[in-house]
Amino acid sequence: MVFRIDMSVRWVDTDALGVVHYSNYFRYVEAAEEELYRSLGFTFKELNEKYKIAIPRVEAFCRYRSPARFGDMLTVTLRLGEMTDKTMTYGFDIKRKNNEESVCDGYLKLIGLDLESWRATRLPPDLASKVTSALA
Amino acid sequence: MVFRIDMSVRWVDTDALGVVHYSNYFRYVEAAEEELYRSLGFTFKELNEKYKIAIPRVEAFCRYRSPARFGDMLTVTLRLGEMTDKTMTYGFDIKRKNNEESVCDGYLKLIGLDLESWRATRLPPDLASKVTSALA
Amino acid sequence: MVFRIDMSVRWVDTDALGVVHYSNYFRYVEAAEEELYRSLGFTFKELNEKYKIAIPRVEAFCRYRSPARFGDMLTVTLRLGEMTDKTMTYGFDIKRKNNEESVCDGYLKLIGLDLESWRATRLPPDLASKVTSALA
Amino acid sequence: MVFRIDMSVRWVDTDALGVVHYSNYFRYVEAAEEELYRSLGFTFKELNEKYKIAIPRVEAFCRYRSPARFGDMLTVTLRLGEMTDKTMTYGFDIKRKNNEESVCDGYLKLIGLDLESWRATRLPPDLASKVTSALA
Repeated sequence: MVFRIDMSVRWVDTDALGVVHYSNYFRYVEAAEEELYRSLGFTFKELNEKYKIAIPRVEAFCRYRSPARFGDMLTVTLRLGEMTDKTMTYGFDIKRKNNEESVCDGYLKLIGLDLESWRATRLPPDLASKVTSALA
Repeated sequence: MVFRIDMSVRWVDTDALGVVHYSNYFRYVEAAEEELYRSLGFTFKELNEKYKIAIPRVEAFCRYRSPARFGDMLTVTLRLGEMTDKTMTYGFDIKRKNNEESVCDGYLKLIGLDLESWRATRLPPDLASKVTSALA
Repeated sequence: MVFRIDMSVRWVDTDALGVVHYSNYFRYVEAAEEELYRSLGFTFKELNEKYKIAIPRVEAFCRYRSPARFGDMLTVTLRLGEMTDKTMTYGFDIKRKNNEESVCDGYLKLIGLDLESWRATRLPPDLASKVTSALA
Repeated sequence: MVFRIDMSVRWVDTDALGVVHYSNYFRYVEAAEEELYRSLGFTFKELNEKYKIAIPRVEAFCRYRSPARFGDMLTVTLRLGEMTDKTMTYGFDIKRKNNEESVCDGYLKLIGLDLESWRATRLPPDLASKVTSALA
């Protein structure tokens, strides 16, 4: 299974070439990730406050295929890749909603981070199991 | 009448104090403005391409009342203020969706800009009349 | 006296009209403010950690006069406006470095915020006196 | 040879965890790339206008090693990786200036893009030769 959101390209996300700045696609993927967690009933903030755990990215990769422009409606799709005790990987792609043309795709690898020691730690079991049931 | 959108605060919009960076509220207002135009059947881009006119901001003002945080659901409201041949002003406020607590409010003043001469020009009549009917 | 920094417009700060997005000028002013504090020997972070005080903006205003474009070298100038026990106001302007053409000007009003009660409080005397000596 | 810039972390680049949002490191790398081109005597804009060529990214990768925080002074280093007729790759790393601790590293792969046909094209020879002499 996958998780999807639709979103429209904002003016502020474009650059002087008239296309979305490449760094912003990572923000679009994060919006999808935030909505996934909201749909599963928790937030980054609850992770931070309840478990004293954050889930920062340790790797980010994106391959750009065609540019999105102001006003385009996009579909952002998240897939679950490898999950270990301490890390999980989301594959993503972004397509134009109307014709499914590929805009970009890539992955994000996240790690559990203990906010007291600031060291790698196990992902909260609650997070891991909910994400697995939603996306496996 | 007013125009409203609901939106959630993204992680990337927060700063190290845990609150939305003040510059981002202007971006939230612009998201509402974009959705207003979409609902009226045109976009910034069509303005640019069809009329060779842009509508840059000439003044922006915001008073900050209480901070929004990651995950907060906000309601952004646009009102029409003064409209002249060449300018129009949107009043805005942003409130927490659940309890209507005020986050910030202010205004944006826009001007018609001829993209060939790069000088002030009349707002496209189509834009002015549609915005007036929607918000007057 | 005033405080000045020079900076160049980054590609990511432009939008599809080829000019700096209006929200970004507030970020340029904040860069100048950060460099002012650095020159005075403290940072936002030290304020937060040492005094448990933050200095969020309560008002922001900008009047836009001519657009900046990618690669433009700009000069951001800060002036001290009114200072009270709990608030201070910076006037700012941004000009093109080569010909001093005005890009925009405005002000930011800041307030002392007690990070424990999350209420308005006196500005740290150290901050107030250093800023006053630097800019008065 | 390599190309380096020093820069400080801006408040707006941090997130509610108190660290730089991961998407912003790509912007720091782009700032270095812009300064490289400036030092070589041309800009993205000149590429666009003179050669009708843009150099969008086709791949971006970053591995995050330790978080940067507000006020940190960073050194961004660019290295030249593979260069073909149509593409070039910059390796980058970002380190803390004071102790050379690694913050992140990765690469960006760029392609020549003909702005009239919007298709891949050869990199401008001028760009390729200047970058090669500066970084080879």
